[in-house]
Amino acid sequence: MTPDQLRRYGRQVVDWIADYLERVETLPVQSPVAPGDVRARLPDQPPRRAESFESILRDMDDVILPGITHWQSPNFFGFFPANSSGPSILGELLSAGLAVQGMMWITSPACTELETHVLDWMVGMLGLPQAFLSTSAGGGVIQDSASSASLCALLAARHKASLGTVRQRGVEQRLVAYASAEAHASIEKAMRVAGLGSRHLRLIATDERHAMKSDVLEETIRRDQATGLHPFFVVSTVGTTSSGAVDPTHGIGQACRKYGLWLHVDAAMAGTAAICPELRDVHRGVELADSYCFNPHKWMFVNFDCDCLFVADRSCLIRALGNSADYLENTASTSGKVIDYRNWQIPLGRRFRALKLWFVIRSFGVDGLRDRVREHVKLARELAGWIEADRRFEMAAPVALNLVCFRHSGGEAASRRLVEHVNREGRIFLTQTRLDELLTLRLCIGQTSTQRQHVARAWSVLCDAADQVA
Amino acid sequence: MTPDQLRRYGRQVVDWIADYLERVETLPVQSPVAPGDVRARLPDQPPRRAESFESILRDMDDVILPGITHWQSPNFFGFFPANSSGPSILGELLSAGLAVQGMMWITSPACTELETHVLDWMVGMLGLPQAFLSTSAGGGVIQDSASSASLCALLAARHKASLGTVRQRGVEQRLVAYASAEAHASIEKAMRVAGLGSRHLRLIATDERHAMKSDVLEETIRRDQATGLHPFFVVSTVGTTSSGAVDPTHGIGQACRKYGLWLHVDAAMAGTAAICPELRDVHRGVELADSYCFNPHKWMFVNFDCDCLFVADRSCLIRALGNSADYLENTASTSGKVIDYRNWQIPLGRRFRALKLWFVIRSFGVDGLRDRVREHVKLARELAGWIEADRRFEMAAPVALNLVCFRHSGGEAASRRLVEHVNREGRIFLTQTRLDELLTLRLCIGQTSTQRQHVARAWSVLCDAADQVA
Repeated sequence: MTPDQLRRYGRQVVDWIADYLERVETLPVQSPVAPGDVRARLPDQPPRRAESFESILRDMDDVILPGITHWQSPNFFGFFPANSSGPSILGELLSAGLAVQGMMWITSPACTELETHVLDWMVGMLGLPQAFLSTSAGGGVIQDSASSASLCALLAARHKASLGTVRQRGVEQRLVAYASAEAHASIEKAMRVAGLGSRHLRLIATDERHAMKSDVLEETIRRDQATGLHPFFVVSTVGTTSSGAVDPTHGIGQACRKYGLWLHVDAAMAGTAAICPELRDVHRGVELADSYCFNPHKWMFVNFDCDCLFVADRSCLIRALGNSADYLENTASTSGKVIDYRNWQIPLGRRFRALKLWFVIRSFGVDGLRDRVREHVKLARELAGWIEADRRFEMAAPVALNLVCFRHSGGEAASRRLVEHVNREGRIFLTQTRLDELLTLRLCIGQTSTQRQHVARAWSVLCDAADQVA
Repeated sequence: MTPDQLRRYGRQVVDWIADYLERVETLPVQSPVAPGDVRARLPDQPPRRAESFESILRDMDDVILPGITHWQSPNFFGFFPANSSGPSILGELLSAGLAVQGMMWITSPACTELETHVLDWMVGMLGLPQAFLSTSAGGGVIQDSASSASLCALLAARHKASLGTVRQRGVEQRLVAYASAEAHASIEKAMRVAGLGSRHLRLIATDERHAMKSDVLEETIRRDQATGLHPFFVVSTVGTTSSGAVDPTHGIGQACRKYGLWLHVDAAMAGTAAICPELRDVHRGVELADSYCFNPHKWMFVNFDCDCLFVADRSCLIRALGNSADYLENTASTSGKVIDYRNWQIPLGRRFRALKLWFVIRSFGVDGLRDRVREHVKLARELAGWIEADRRFEMAAPVALNLVCFRHSGGEAASRRLVEHVNREGRIFLTQTRLDELLTLRLCIGQTSTQRQHVARAWSVLCDAADQVA
């Protein structure tokens, strides 16, 4: 494809996306295809000869689109908002066009320096501790996901714990980590990946708000220490996936300080709320954290993937994940004057992901981001009010921010029929979980273009469906 | 940004990229900025109010471009080709525009099914074993990088090794892995991440071609078994980073079968060559592999990130990396009829990366891909001929495919001055490594738009520089 062809087809693709975003609201949110439907429309063998771009773009409509569940629909209320926005799409496009590797400073200084700079901006925007600034002993780095960020934090903590004790074979077998029973499944996965084992992860009981009981945490740490184990890592979840519960980071952090554990704060979706000063109490205690992550790719209008991981002491992270190779040696790296982000993550290569984050912050402005987040929180509270006032439904958890958890008052079977009916119908999409062992519907408000009218329509869809499945 | 604004600014960005690709050849390949230069041009604080997209795009020229090392220049011969192409850029753009999550089949069936299908295509295109097809017990999955792919392979192998032995505390402390002394640094990093420790990675000696000595491997495995250790994992490198050496996968695989070890083949860059039947001997023995990875984002014209990982038995991978959570439960997953790629990787979320791979294969056609690869290999051999015939230089390794390793015949200091001079000058860019403990220049030919004229010019630049630094 020549540059002139890229101009021509690029315009077609841009128009295709703009058209898509204009009509996405009218499409069934959940893809209606059955397993195998998409593959059945694809040829068994790859083409020997070049195909025209026109035929490829045609297949986007004919083959791909029917198999898409529309995360960018304002009627998407499932899982979490994997939201996007024009400036983010164009930042991603420029990243693809430049196609630089950001593995080291030398491989494209702008890729590293813009990332460092924008992550320093984020420290101020979220009211995070100064220790997370690159100008302190800490710093921020973009990871692909909170799963990876939490794993990196765990590895840094493991490194520190192994150093802090007498070096002896077997110390790693005694390391124990802690998270609430409502923490994300990626924490358990990280323990397995790191070879520490899920049996050495303690899932601490939660209170009636589904938040970790910090007194139970402290007791558990003490009991583990007494039996010769080595407690080293705690995850405080700010906004659990199932209910949006906010763990008491301050109390957890005090226990971590007392017993010498690394505190990681996982604020994957909810962290974005802290850009609004009046919502910043979700971060209370974060000044005690050794690491923190949140995902602009969830609720801050930046395309996946963009998770921001901050550490208070970058040396632990770099020692855990850094290495050397003759083929990577360069004078900038050996000077010690630059950041080589390859040593802050598991993969070697990295895209220029800071561009899209920078574009979004500048295009929305901090005030513009706040406005959207405030609106989503307001809509969630409004919806919760409607649910509370309606005998067909019952709330399943308090609404902390933008996630509304509820049930059909007809019980488990009715709730299940409700979510299945609504998703099959396709006017809105929501997902389910379990809270207090009961099936619970989750309606998450945060998609970039979701406005009051969409939430009102969702409520109407739910009311209609509630009657039908009762 | 409204859809209409997205149309307008999207065209500007497409034009910006096309203009960039038209003139990238004229830019100094290595960014000339000093540490801190880029940050110094960025405001200390994020903007409170929205900025215009025009001002953002202006900063691409004023702030970002000077800090870019131009990986897309046809004069870029460093590290590895992180190449790109028009269809890949547009595939990435569509992925950003749809912005779906591909973590499970249900979250967008087309994202999963296209990936499965195109990776099945790749099995045929590369002449890989049928066991890697999704229709067998194996299958393919896109990872971000070979680092992550090798880590996932290691975790699957660890899972299998732990199962295959009597389950007892401490078995993991006896697991030992093997790779050549020229294997990629990511293997050592994977051992540390997995908690197995780099001291349990044996780096096997290489022969005069820098390829693993399979007899030494076998001896080492036997010795480790005799001392009560548990050999479990071998990496055969097809195209080492330093010299492009190809390990004897067949002999290594036979040792793996004999002693019951998992064989992982890391063909990150060189694997692409196997799309040409006459170059497919780099894969000799791959039918013995339990897993295999290569990077279309290196030498197959697909933007980073796109690594293809194949496994012969997907159940090991899924058991090692799968987990469950109430908030992810859905009927498609529990039916067992679909693939949920979240269980094939470390992160939970995933982009729609199959689009760009699909676009590239269709836009080039298999023949078109072969033509490019053949041309690069031919150019590398031609350059090697020129170097061999010139007394100012000496070859440092045989040319297997597209990587030419050489030295200034004036010795270490002259070689170092040569690479520094050339890169500072900016007409071409190449990098360095060590082979046989000697500083070695690496000139890697594989950038999408690199043609004979660029290699000829590179040779002329090197000759001029060789005289100057002598």
